[in-house]
Amino acid sequence: MSPFTRQRSRSVAALGESQLITEIARWLGSASPKPPRGIGDDCAVLSGTPRDQLITVDPVIYGEHFDDRIPARGAGAKLFNRNLSDIAAMGGRPRAAVIALALSQEVKIEWLRDFYRSIANLARRYSVPLIGGDVAHHATGFIATMTMLGESTQKRILCRRGAKPGDWIFVTGRLGGSRLEWHWKFTPRLAEGQWLASRAEVHAMMDISDGLAKDLRALQPKGTRIALSQRAIPISRSARQHSKTSGQPALLHALTDGEDYELVFAVSGRTQPDAFVREWHRHCKGLLTCIGQFSKSRAVSPFPDELDLSGFHGFEHLR
Amino acid sequence: MSPFTRQRSRSVAALGESQLITEIARWLGSASPKPPRGIGDDCAVLSGTPRDQLITVDPVIYGEHFDDRIPARGAGAKLFNRNLSDIAAMGGRPRAAVIALALSQEVKIEWLRDFYRSIANLARRYSVPLIGGDVAHHATGFIATMTMLGESTQKRILCRRGAKPGDWIFVTGRLGGSRLEWHWKFTPRLAEGQWLASRAEVHAMMDISDGLAKDLRALQPKGTRIALSQRAIPISRSARQHSKTSGQPALLHALTDGEDYELVFAVSGRTQPDAFVREWHRHCKGLLTCIGQFSKSRAVSPFPDELDLSGFHGFEHLR
Repeated sequence: MSPFTRQRSRSVAALGESQLITEIARWLGSASPKPPRGIGDDCAVLSGTPRDQLITVDPVIYGEHFDDRIPARGAGAKLFNRNLSDIAAMGGRPRAAVIALALSQEVKIEWLRDFYRSIANLARRYSVPLIGGDVAHHATGFIATMTMLGESTQKRILCRRGAKPGDWIFVTGRLGGSRLEWHWKFTPRLAEGQWLASRAEVHAMMDISDGLAKDLRALQPKGTRIALSQRAIPISRSARQHSKTSGQPALLHALTDGEDYELVFAVSGRTQPDAFVREWHRHCKGLLTCIGQFSKSRAVSPFPDELDLSGFHGFEHLR
Repeated sequence: MSPFTRQRSRSVAALGESQLITEIARWLGSASPKPPRGIGDDCAVLSGTPRDQLITVDPVIYGEHFDDRIPARGAGAKLFNRNLSDIAAMGGRPRAAVIALALSQEVKIEWLRDFYRSIANLARRYSVPLIGGDVAHHATGFIATMTMLGESTQKRILCRRGAKPGDWIFVTGRLGGSRLEWHWKFTPRLAEGQWLASRAEVHAMMDISDGLAKDLRALQPKGTRIALSQRAIPISRSARQHSKTSGQPALLHALTDGEDYELVFAVSGRTQPDAFVREWHRHCKGLLTCIGQFSKSRAVSPFPDELDLSGFHGFEHLR
């Protein structure tokens, strides 16, 4: 039986990515535990003693995640760093990785060498041994899928769930315009994620891969509204640059481009945002911004310039 | 820079799979430890307390590992069982799995449902929770890559290395003709692998994926010859059936078809093969055959019908 159909209503295009993941969890039923022990967080979590284990898997696919404009070492770095960013997003420490390669006979040896060498450089820098993998034939393309294992550095891991009404929303770095270069040149916020996991006032965290507007919904507690201050959103230079050619506002790029690989997290409403930022700068480099609050649904807006997120949509993979 | 070339001498086709894996290990350098802590065994091994961890990764690719003749549940079962067979091949116990999906918009929802449901059935049967994964867009095809985690059940794991000159060569089940049905209908030898890992006289083990003639070379100790008794090779009914249409001897199919997913292992030369088979039948079901010996290179043949393996080649993925 063919897996494919041109009838849109019967195809996964009719579902889109989010709904597809929900369906997959339904099809798996009791074979898949609930998050963070099951599908739906940045990493899967395998309970362990003395530490929980983290498992994440992400590919780079030729024509999807990179193309001829990017050097082989860029594609390799992206593969490694995408996975490392998921470990960072749970406040973990990486331990080891494996790579499954599916490639056509026409892949250049030289290209593949540079791809692996750049992975090796990062693996040494972060002490992540590459302990295995698989090589398979693929008729027309190139897909490399990395699985990275990690562990919690603290007694706890930071999941997507856990934010409470009234929590402040913080984001690292600047957002938008990643497709210019950032999507393969970014640095995962590993040390930052580990420090954040050590702070009890941080309730929930994730990395931004599909755009803030979409990803923030995964952190949002029930009975709340995502109240963002428009002027607080840290917009990257690339977003402004991209805006000139796209004709779209730089803010739209910051909220929806995706592949920012910055951390977004919820901090207790009882914490003073300014004090938290000062504490951050004692331990971490780089920008940290309080961009809003998970307000009670009908509460008066905490910001005079509150942004209505409902008009912004992040990256949808299958539509 | 494009990863692809039509010049064969610059492409991975010029290397072939075995040489490519050697090159990958070279490119990775010190980022990749030596096997079984690195690339080159059925599973990667991550040292741990109290148990070593096993990690294996294998895909099913539409057009490579399955096609329209196979039901969706068959493709799902193959994905799960390929990975489980690698855990079995090291005498381990599976613990959890994640799946990375790369698929076109044209994949049928119904097909994908059956694919996942069959994985869920096996996951429940073997108590392997599916704890996470990833979904990515792929322009034209379908690739599902599973990473399975396991652990050793014994104080030791059984690696490919460890066979000694004089060791007997044993194989479970019957070989050949897997492409008729076996390649998606096989049952991994999980309990058998665990029992074998508990026996000190078993020195090394692997599962047969590329054909006995090719895979046995990975077990072969230095300074030895693979001396097989031709009449001892257990030939499957499918190999005999396939032989009728292929015009090739059934023995050739048994030695080179691959995807047998049977266990091949080395047993101390001081053990009596018949006694070992009797012991096997007290603990395991199914056929076990002593097919030969790792003889010293120039020793007199232990078998009057010794098979010359040099004319047989297993499955090469990239040529």
